Amino acid sequence: MPSHAPLSAAERAEFEAFATGIANNARALSLPRFRRPVDVSHKGDMSPVTAVDRGVESMLRERIEQAWPGHGLLGEEYGASHVDAEFVWSIDPIDGTRSFISGWPLWGTLIALLRGGTPVLGILDMPALDERWVGHVGVSTEMNGRPCHASACEALGEATLYTTTPDMFTPAEWEAFDRTSRAAYTRRFGGDCYGYGMLASGHIDAVIEANLMPYDYLAITPVVQAAGGVMTDWEGRPLGMASGGRVVAAATPALHAALIASLKG
Amino acid sequence: MPSHAPLSAAERAEFEAFATGIANNARALSLPRFRRPVDVSHKGDMSPVTAVDRGVESMLRERIEQAWPGHGLLGEEYGASHVDAEFVWSIDPIDGTRSFISGWPLWGTLIALLRGGTPVLGILDMPALDERWVGHVGVSTEMNGRPCHASACEALGEATLYTTTPDMFTPAEWEAFDRTSRAAYTRRFGGDCYGYGMLASGHIDAVIEANLMPYDYLAITPVVQAAGGVMTDWEGRPLGMASGGRVVAAATPALHAALIASLKG
Repeated sequence: MPSHAPLSAAERAEFEAFATGIANNARALSLPRFRRPVDVSHKGDMSPVTAVDRGVESMLRERIEQAWPGHGLLGEEYGASHVDAEFVWSIDPIDGTRSFISGWPLWGTLIALLRGGTPVLGILDMPALDERWVGHVGVSTEMNGRPCHASACEALGEATLYTTTPDMFTPAEWEAFDRTSRAAYTRRFGGDCYGYGMLASGHIDAVIEANLMPYDYLAITPVVQAAGGVMTDWEGRPLGMASGGRVVAAATPALHAALIASLKG
Repeated sequence: MPSHAPLSAAERAEFEAFATGIANNARALSLPRFRRPVDVSHKGDMSPVTAVDRGVESMLRERIEQAWPGHGLLGEEYGASHVDAEFVWSIDPIDGTRSFISGWPLWGTLIALLRGGTPVLGILDMPALDERWVGHVGVSTEMNGRPCHASACEALGEATLYTTTPDMFTPAEWEAFDRTSRAAYTRRFGGDCYGYGMLASGHIDAVIEANLMPYDYLAITPVVQAAGGVMTDWEGRPLGMASGGRVVAAATPALHAALIASLKG
């Protein structure tokens, strides 16, 4: 059995029960501290981090290490361990820390399970909105327990396209993004991980971003793919732990191809 | 008594009861149709409009005309009438139609009462988030019934600054915005009217926007001002029905002055 074999039904059930359980634990830590005074410090890249980010990641790591001592682990605040294991967990305790510290409800907790380097299970949890997407690659994505599907949009000119901020792009990337997004029906800004949930639920049609880290996109990839969407890097390659930070998510293969072609110029 | 006299306590109570009542009616029409299929058409400026925008505005206009036949009325979809009356209502049924039609919860309903051309009462209602700000100029702003206050931030370098999209600025305006927002602690995009609510509640410190219409900012001005903030046009002038569409909202007079100075270059 190759190491990237899909999960069996029994594995899916066991891993999902565990992952949603720790997502609940994360909510219980983060949500009561939302819109409350919190100390903010800054990392080397000047991105902010709070005691909530660190507390949630510590709890998640501890739970994962206790439950699955043979698995690898990749997290935003405390780095990576055993990422050559067959199973690796990727966690982002607060995706959208800038939203969290500015009272904006569009922050999420991201949890992924990779097998053989490929993300197979992803959880995109939005505590302040009480919305959660769970995606099993090859099976289905559910939002709050109900199956959801990406839209049928195939034409760039009909697509609603989101990105978090123009500040995530280099000048050359912005040129490609700007050209592509101006050809869409509409482009909108903001959201961090939330746009991918909206894509999986069929509300928007595409997200293009750059400068992401693996823990930003690894949990999102199964959510988008298992909802019928396509999510790759800007060259159309599958996303894994070593991908660059440029991602394209689209509701359909045709729209994805149009976005990749436009980004190439 | 000059026509711009503040409302008496009795007037405040009566107008607030009426305005929150029609805001409830608006929610009852809009929220059940959120994330449901809806026909979208486009206005002359290519901005989208839905049957929900039109239905909510029609209901609001009817309620206002029945209750206050001598008052003026200004709305997004159906124009203005009697705007030279002592009292004028300004309504935006769905601020953030692009959010509404893309399943994004950051759309609002805006209701303002002007006296002698000055906004004195404003409601910023976010149906999908169950959050509502009510501002009485000179008295207080309440969010979901509890008084709220803008932050104490006075320094641009410490300010969290929001704007909806770079696409709302002309190139010259973008240059001024870009310079100003890069001097802030952080700048973020997205939100339409929601950023002003976050400002009134002390979560963020500033919003700078352009290309707004009177029904976009008239309801927001009392919410920001009565929470202790300052909101004017880019030249520092009070906002009224005939202001241009460029607005600056800040948590404190000092921060507001810094933003105005930076925008002037």
